[in-house]
Amino acid sequence: MVGQTKRKVAILGATGMVGQRFLSLLQNHPWFEVTALVASERSAGKTYGEAARWVLNEPMPDKYRDMPVVLSDAALDADLCFSAIPGDLAGPVESELAKKGYKIFSNAKAHRWDRDVPLLVPEVNPDHAHLVKRQNHGSGGYIVTNGNCSTIVMVMTLKPLVDAFGVKRVFVSTYQAVSGAGYPGVPSIDILGNVIPYIGSEEEKIEREPLKMLGTLGPDGVAPADLRVSATAVRVPVEEGHSMAVSVELGRAATPEEVARTMREWRSRPQHLKLPSAPERPLEVLSETNRPQPRKDWRRGNGMSVNVGRIRPDPLFTVKYFASGSNTVRGAAGSNILGAELLLAEGLL
Amino acid sequence: MVGQTKRKVAILGATGMVGQRFLSLLQNHPWFEVTALVASERSAGKTYGEAARWVLNEPMPDKYRDMPVVLSDAALDADLCFSAIPGDLAGPVESELAKKGYKIFSNAKAHRWDRDVPLLVPEVNPDHAHLVKRQNHGSGGYIVTNGNCSTIVMVMTLKPLVDAFGVKRVFVSTYQAVSGAGYPGVPSIDILGNVIPYIGSEEEKIEREPLKMLGTLGPDGVAPADLRVSATAVRVPVEEGHSMAVSVELGRAATPEEVARTMREWRSRPQHLKLPSAPERPLEVLSETNRPQPRKDWRRGNGMSVNVGRIRPDPLFTVKYFASGSNTVRGAAGSNILGAELLLAEGLL
Amino acid sequence: MVGQTKRKVAILGATGMVGQRFLSLLQNHPWFEVTALVASERSAGKTYGEAARWVLNEPMPDKYRDMPVVLSDAALDADLCFSAIPGDLAGPVESELAKKGYKIFSNAKAHRWDRDVPLLVPEVNPDHAHLVKRQNHGSGGYIVTNGNCSTIVMVMTLKPLVDAFGVKRVFVSTYQAVSGAGYPGVPSIDILGNVIPYIGSEEEKIEREPLKMLGTLGPDGVAPADLRVSATAVRVPVEEGHSMAVSVELGRAATPEEVARTMREWRSRPQHLKLPSAPERPLEVLSETNRPQPRKDWRRGNGMSVNVGRIRPDPLFTVKYFASGSNTVRGAAGSNILGAELLLAEGLL
Amino acid sequence: MVGQTKRKVAILGATGMVGQRFLSLLQNHPWFEVTALVASERSAGKTYGEAARWVLNEPMPDKYRDMPVVLSDAALDADLCFSAIPGDLAGPVESELAKKGYKIFSNAKAHRWDRDVPLLVPEVNPDHAHLVKRQNHGSGGYIVTNGNCSTIVMVMTLKPLVDAFGVKRVFVSTYQAVSGAGYPGVPSIDILGNVIPYIGSEEEKIEREPLKMLGTLGPDGVAPADLRVSATAVRVPVEEGHSMAVSVELGRAATPEEVARTMREWRSRPQHLKLPSAPERPLEVLSETNRPQPRKDWRRGNGMSVNVGRIRPDPLFTVKYFASGSNTVRGAAGSNILGAELLLAEGLL
Repeated sequence: MVGQTKRKVAILGATGMVGQRFLSLLQNHPWFEVTALVASERSAGKTYGEAARWVLNEPMPDKYRDMPVVLSDAALDADLCFSAIPGDLAGPVESELAKKGYKIFSNAKAHRWDRDVPLLVPEVNPDHAHLVKRQNHGSGGYIVTNGNCSTIVMVMTLKPLVDAFGVKRVFVSTYQAVSGAGYPGVPSIDILGNVIPYIGSEEEKIEREPLKMLGTLGPDGVAPADLRVSATAVRVPVEEGHSMAVSVELGRAATPEEVARTMREWRSRPQHLKLPSAPERPLEVLSETNRPQPRKDWRRGNGMSVNVGRIRPDPLFTVKYFASGSNTVRGAAGSNILGAELLLAEGLL
Repeated sequence: MVGQTKRKVAILGATGMVGQRFLSLLQNHPWFEVTALVASERSAGKTYGEAARWVLNEPMPDKYRDMPVVLSDAALDADLCFSAIPGDLAGPVESELAKKGYKIFSNAKAHRWDRDVPLLVPEVNPDHAHLVKRQNHGSGGYIVTNGNCSTIVMVMTLKPLVDAFGVKRVFVSTYQAVSGAGYPGVPSIDILGNVIPYIGSEEEKIEREPLKMLGTLGPDGVAPADLRVSATAVRVPVEEGHSMAVSVELGRAATPEEVARTMREWRSRPQHLKLPSAPERPLEVLSETNRPQPRKDWRRGNGMSVNVGRIRPDPLFTVKYFASGSNTVRGAAGSNILGAELLLAEGLL
Repeated sequence: MVGQTKRKVAILGATGMVGQRFLSLLQNHPWFEVTALVASERSAGKTYGEAARWVLNEPMPDKYRDMPVVLSDAALDADLCFSAIPGDLAGPVESELAKKGYKIFSNAKAHRWDRDVPLLVPEVNPDHAHLVKRQNHGSGGYIVTNGNCSTIVMVMTLKPLVDAFGVKRVFVSTYQAVSGAGYPGVPSIDILGNVIPYIGSEEEKIEREPLKMLGTLGPDGVAPADLRVSATAVRVPVEEGHSMAVSVELGRAATPEEVARTMREWRSRPQHLKLPSAPERPLEVLSETNRPQPRKDWRRGNGMSVNVGRIRPDPLFTVKYFASGSNTVRGAAGSNILGAELLLAEGLL
Repeated sequence: MVGQTKRKVAILGATGMVGQRFLSLLQNHPWFEVTALVASERSAGKTYGEAARWVLNEPMPDKYRDMPVVLSDAALDADLCFSAIPGDLAGPVESELAKKGYKIFSNAKAHRWDRDVPLLVPEVNPDHAHLVKRQNHGSGGYIVTNGNCSTIVMVMTLKPLVDAFGVKRVFVSTYQAVSGAGYPGVPSIDILGNVIPYIGSEEEKIEREPLKMLGTLGPDGVAPADLRVSATAVRVPVEEGHSMAVSVELGRAATPEEVARTMREWRSRPQHLKLPSAPERPLEVLSETNRPQPRKDWRRGNGMSVNVGRIRPDPLFTVKYFASGSNTVRGAAGSNILGAELLLAEGLL
């Protein structure tokens, strides 16, 4: 990017919680400049300061306060779009914008299973980025998706194990923050002093998405990895940070020390390319007996590191550990931004 | 018990959280009357109202307020003792009292693995109660222990599966309440908006204790069950109720519906004997998609039912479900009391 | 009520949180029997079990599960109605039903300031109940309202002081539970580990309603009391129980001991009439230095006692204290039920 | 400080929560370098990494991990000391060190009321700093103290009102974070879903300390300000940030707008001197109806701004508002550091 002007960025779904996280992360980005804020009819025509109910702990950056909020069918002054459009609305809007030539980096689930759409976790499957060349929207536009927030945290811990030892089966139980439900999300009367053992469609995503993420690029898209996952997804009264207890059956015997070292030493393409949002250590292996903890550890690597601890033998499988990472940064907006950085560095953007 | 006078009961460790729960549960008990309150030197000589920092949500029963607190070496006007003595102090004190002829029902871990001491969960292994006849303290005294609070909740859900299908392997991840740590227990600055993935010695207990509880009474004590468990124990900001995600490999195929029916229809000896503290349904199978929840469900069966929900196929093992139960009632004082009721009804007390 | 059959009761707004509290409190009521469940179009035609998302900690009473939910314009088989209709919908519906001859006991604010409608707190202004005789809906129907939940807790503590010493000025800062906001109410992401210093219209109600509640019945309705209140209303992450720091300028000097005794000894008409829902002690004066606490004390008097503690001299006014009471029982459904009991006992129902 | 080497700093009570906050705030300080870590016998002889149970949300800075922890009677390689010694231990240790010639900036209460010791809030009473010249420890050493954490937040909001309008009487009710109680501090079982209306000695400090802070420097020390405060101190389940509802009787009439403008425009000596820790705006006046909130606003001004909102007329006094500020930064370590910066800039250090 040296010597170039910044790429222009539109945020789709800019007023929601993930939209806010995009704006926060991009406020001083070296490669990207937010030039358009897109939201629904309720917000369009207002300034961002009027339209958004800002919910992040850090104050709304002043630079966005007076920007106009527009509809997605406006002429967007942007090269690429980060999409935080909620739920079922995302799919058609993203397709429409890709047809118009925009490059879409999406948090939504709509296109995750489209054959030529990468389900991209930049450290895990950077080669999948090249799938975008196969997309044919007749316009130069394309769509890149990033997986479910819990899947991303988990698959980051699995990838170096897949490479070093092979991974056959995984049990995972999650401890998920309320911010993962967006805004207004979980009513306080439901979650104060309580846990809720159900998050709609979450377990299916955690069980299925790793197969594509860890799969092999082939002529017919991604051939799924040979891996089986059993997930239980539970909401806990935590503000930020999805945590999980993970038990892994490896392809061959390995000690906890080998696993820890493998995780600690793991670096991938975003680190080699020194991408602006790439954490120095994609996996932060903590040695204290009672870590990681979501509230205390989610900020590591500017929210982009996944934290791992308590790596120990598993009486049934090979190894078990506890992992935790930011769900709104690493598990959502930050991974999307890192994905766009990767495609730019690879000449695909 | 009809026509008899009530048995006299001493509470050991009466001022602590579990001690308080004993007092609360026993305040109107039909068979037992609390006649002695035992605590450490710091409390002895005071009235209970002076000595105890009452932490339960219901008020301290008036009947205990003016009772004197005594040391364990006092002459206790009691037939049996419920022991909530914390940590390492429990073992010697309990042995000493058993030698003096007291019947001890203990929450402490000290004697759980003594060969002739039952690790009793009254619905799970009522026959183990007869082990007390083999104890020889030379006095008529004996010791009965009840397991770890998380183990009790889990093993209650496993027992009917063991009987109906066989159980080979179990993965369990817990979501444990802060009351399980006693008082003062977990500092609020550590747990507010956070989870802590470590509870000292807890995983070892959850992995090991079921083998004795589900084991077979033989000439040399209890032959351990052929079962393997992998546990992760995590503290969450919940006041009362230990919850857990459980995946079970059964001895034969079974549908979630069969498992649910087996659990729902399960009754054991405490139910057949209509013991005062026995819940009508030892397992409460909930059909709502987002239950059980600790805060909303722990009171079922007066805190003695274990709640189960989300029974569904497991992609790796046979079935998975979510369970939750009161850790201070079902997982501690209540199970102890039910145990004493069982021994009394069986003519062992 | 001796020898009579129970009065038939309709619950308006039966599916909401206060509606649920009505059903819970009335499930075994000696005088009232719930015979009709009224809710909005979204629920009408379903059974209550289908329509209601039950949020209380105790399970939904089985007796309501299969009752049909009807619209308010149905022919209600009921003598009186408890209204938990939310917000702006309540006013017209309640008026309409009063015209049809129903006796309405309402939690809604719509008719609180109607001249001939009692703003009734049964221990505070039982004589105001007679206002209903002045209402002229041409049908025998009438409306009784019961004030804001925080106001009720506060005014209960003020009434004996008004009678004994006079009350001139009051400062009050509240610590209000999330259940006061109904369901879904406060988003968890807003309140976890946080306080929110604003509750819409709450301070106005706390400052104004006591003037009518403590006012004098006269020919033109209620002449307002000569009293001034300054309130700050703040939401805290508490499930149940509104608490408040109160400083009072009395009409004459009084020691904290006199104030405590006055509060402790206070009994009013509901206690003299031994109404079923009347707490034995309308004010529970606690002597521990760190009480009352909402989570530990709200259940006193079956949720109908208001708890007071830390009564001490005020450096600026006369006395200050901390008060706490159940917002859904004492501050809402329970006070309404007690009001209906009062009117029945007084021959007004 | 330009051109000078950094001053050497010892942290007394380095392993506690406030000690940790000092270390965190000083890790990159332009004027001060931590050269000695002092703690009790339990920690002395260990490295800081071994001795400290780090409780802040950000990781322990690596630079401290291998530093040795020493006792206070060691030869400290330091020019000044920040004292976070808990409770009653602080007084004698601080006196002893002052006698040895150290400049002490203390969070402890021991010396706050010594005649020649400033009770310094740098923006509020910067002139009081000169009191240190009157201290005679025979060594060049002196002691500066910095007030209770709640008092500091409150008095920051009062100072510009004192200057502009005069302040006669203040009612304040607090909503205080658990971090204010240090570590381990408040047991989680006491505060989850609860509020605790008592904090030992807190109300006395909030009522009394402003009189010295706002007092006038005279020949006999500080003549107390003519101001009366009534405080209620309450603990809430918040991690960081003390909040408070404040009602003020001003010396003359003023509109909320005047008060808001006075607060917003207030700058004091630390701002004029551009001290490194001085927030640009000592008071951050927020216009949203539901702010400030502790969790969302405590980081403003790097934790050194006090946030104010909801400025509105008071029905009894002149004006009321809600204030919130970091208790560990603004209310403790940060104010101490700012104090040391002030004395250095004034040539007193």
